[in-house]
Amino acid sequence: MKSQFAQRLDSLGTETAFAVSQDAAEYSSMGNAVYPFHLGDIDISTPANIMDSTLKAMRDGKTGYNPAAGLPELRSVLAEVAGRERGIHFQAENVVIQPGGKPVIPKFIQALMDPGDGVLYPNPGYPIYESQIEFHGGHAIPYGFIHSDNGFQIDREGIENIIDNNTRILIYNNYQNPIGAESNMEEMKWIAELAEKHDLWILSDEAYFKIRYAGTSKSIASIPGIQNRTVILYTFSKTYAMTGWRLGAAIGPKELMKVFAKLAINDESCTNHFIQYGGIEALTGSQEGAKDILKELKRRRDTLAKQLNDIPGMSLYRPDSTFYLFPDVTDIYNNLGVQSYEEFRSRILMETGVSFCTREHFGTPMKGEERKYIRFAYSGIPVNKIEEGIHKLKEFLVSSDTTVFNK
Amino acid sequence: MKSQFAQRLDSLGTETAFAVSQDAAEYSSMGNAVYPFHLGDIDISTPANIMDSTLKAMRDGKTGYNPAAGLPELRSVLAEVAGRERGIHFQAENVVIQPGGKPVIPKFIQALMDPGDGVLYPNPGYPIYESQIEFHGGHAIPYGFIHSDNGFQIDREGIENIIDNNTRILIYNNYQNPIGAESNMEEMKWIAELAEKHDLWILSDEAYFKIRYAGTSKSIASIPGIQNRTVILYTFSKTYAMTGWRLGAAIGPKELMKVFAKLAINDESCTNHFIQYGGIEALTGSQEGAKDILKELKRRRDTLAKQLNDIPGMSLYRPDSTFYLFPDVTDIYNNLGVQSYEEFRSRILMETGVSFCTREHFGTPMKGEERKYIRFAYSGIPVNKIEEGIHKLKEFLVSSDTTVFNK
Repeated sequence: MKSQFAQRLDSLGTETAFAVSQDAAEYSSMGNAVYPFHLGDIDISTPANIMDSTLKAMRDGKTGYNPAAGLPELRSVLAEVAGRERGIHFQAENVVIQPGGKPVIPKFIQALMDPGDGVLYPNPGYPIYESQIEFHGGHAIPYGFIHSDNGFQIDREGIENIIDNNTRILIYNNYQNPIGAESNMEEMKWIAELAEKHDLWILSDEAYFKIRYAGTSKSIASIPGIQNRTVILYTFSKTYAMTGWRLGAAIGPKELMKVFAKLAINDESCTNHFIQYGGIEALTGSQEGAKDILKELKRRRDTLAKQLNDIPGMSLYRPDSTFYLFPDVTDIYNNLGVQSYEEFRSRILMETGVSFCTREHFGTPMKGEERKYIRFAYSGIPVNKIEEGIHKLKEFLVSSDTTVFNK
Repeated sequence: MKSQFAQRLDSLGTETAFAVSQDAAEYSSMGNAVYPFHLGDIDISTPANIMDSTLKAMRDGKTGYNPAAGLPELRSVLAEVAGRERGIHFQAENVVIQPGGKPVIPKFIQALMDPGDGVLYPNPGYPIYESQIEFHGGHAIPYGFIHSDNGFQIDREGIENIIDNNTRILIYNNYQNPIGAESNMEEMKWIAELAEKHDLWILSDEAYFKIRYAGTSKSIASIPGIQNRTVILYTFSKTYAMTGWRLGAAIGPKELMKVFAKLAINDESCTNHFIQYGGIEALTGSQEGAKDILKELKRRRDTLAKQLNDIPGMSLYRPDSTFYLFPDVTDIYNNLGVQSYEEFRSRILMETGVSFCTREHFGTPMKGEERKYIRFAYSGIPVNKIEEGIHKLKEFLVSSDTTVFNK
């Protein structure tokens, strides 16, 4: 094979969490029970009414191309529903349908970031932000979080220290993967003011906007003056258990959405035709399926949080959104005498079958970051398996001869 | 709205043919009959067995994520089938499933082209080649075709005059859109030797490989020594009337396919899960549906070619592949006294309802190009409408007081 690939590939990152899946699969293939807390996937069925509408559209011959920006009806319905949920007036022209939420990230970067531009992104955070920024020649600037008894807050002082005149974009993932962090109004307004002051574009990744068990979600785009500098990453994946369907959207200023549609023509022609009718049903039909999904996720969260809190040395904040828990495991880490996150992860997998991602799967630890964290996803594992797995984990940790458990 | 977008957008092209669709829709909305020859879409149903398998997979819960490179079973089956059809030994690792054939183009360019590299691409040709090359900072170098009584041949002398040390890639679309051109063995070997001599990567766009009515398709990757420098763009869209499903693949060297999978993780996570089971059925199940599609397309081609040949001043080569006809309309163009391709297209639409793309929708005419061509697609219009539309077209042209028809 010709061996010379393009140089830009040197800057391309990936989701290293996939290596965890492979590890878990390998361990499972040796006949061991695996408790999959590493996956952000959902093992719950898509609601039947969505499947039925999709099927009907397929049978009705919705199998040819459709507009690059998506079916007008879906764009219109999504503008109405997403706008209502956020208290924002959107029109169909504010919406470009995409094959999933993820394609919004490269399109946003390609449309708004010039090489050398600075882009603020959350760390720990979804690793594709950093990868796409650097792949397209930008300057990826991580901002961190501060852990308190009330959960995680954005490190504002850290942002003020790193932002400069070349900073052009801020990626904001409220209801955050992997932390589960969410801004209170005061923090959200601070971010909004920062964006105005420094004239930043905002990518508001709202994938988990409707995955919440208490309280109400709020979009930064609803703050006056912010809508026109914000693109919302919207996805059907979590709310309706449609991760593998690949259906999402960008919602943003109309002129910019024309650019997104042009990028869609270039990159993918269009999103699958008939599943967009499933999307229309998801938004306009019965919401019982979505409620059931949320109920099941809440049961899992409550079970998992309770059990993790019973493990000596584990310090856990229980967020009211996302389907992740992000405990501080510093004491356990230190007492196990491991040399790295990978050793920690791999040892616990081999001893207990409990498989999870660590903080390192969501970015390089920040300078001065001393505490150790891991991420449990509970979207892909039922309650009885959560109980079984965390019981094994606790037994292993307690039986390990380490100071923390003998205190 | 913040108005400053990224500079790279200045180099982003599009498919201008979409404007033709809008024109036709507008004309139709005024109550006129439109004969849609402008669409490369297919108005024939996807075979039922493919729909049934997709439905079954959806009901069976294949609604979560799947690997970025695609389902192992589909990769394996496609390697076997595409390899058999081409006389090449492929393995699953040579295949990366994609949401359509089109996403192979940006991934190929991003993986192999550095800014400033020269890329040879066909002109007239699929407009996304040029757009993606320039969008990613490459030097887009068009190569043309020579029209003879035997159809269209690649302008080899033209290529030899423009190729230089910076040329790194050749895009080859045998069974060509819009021309319908295909290489004989001698021409294909010449291209292969050129690629070896200049150490070029080849993107072999084989979207129409199985849309042929006589003869046998051949892939340039089957020529000894070429497979390792070639990526095949494969799609289910045409063969199985699945344009709106968005299911395709890249087939190429294993190390390069790892890069494609990494790009897929970054750009789209994965291709829709359950429709990949439809893809497995398409490749391994009954081929009667595909045969029926081909029979219907052949009926249309024969009808359209015969009727176009009956129009004075129209000079037509009838290719045995693709679903396009690309007549030389120079005499008609000149005699209508129009000033531009757009005027020609628009006048005929307004007079007859016959809607088609012109040569200009497939690239800027080459230097010295004097003949005028238009493209008829017959994939989206049934035989009776072909007859009706072309009859109207002939009547209009014959009734027009122009020298060519009075000869």
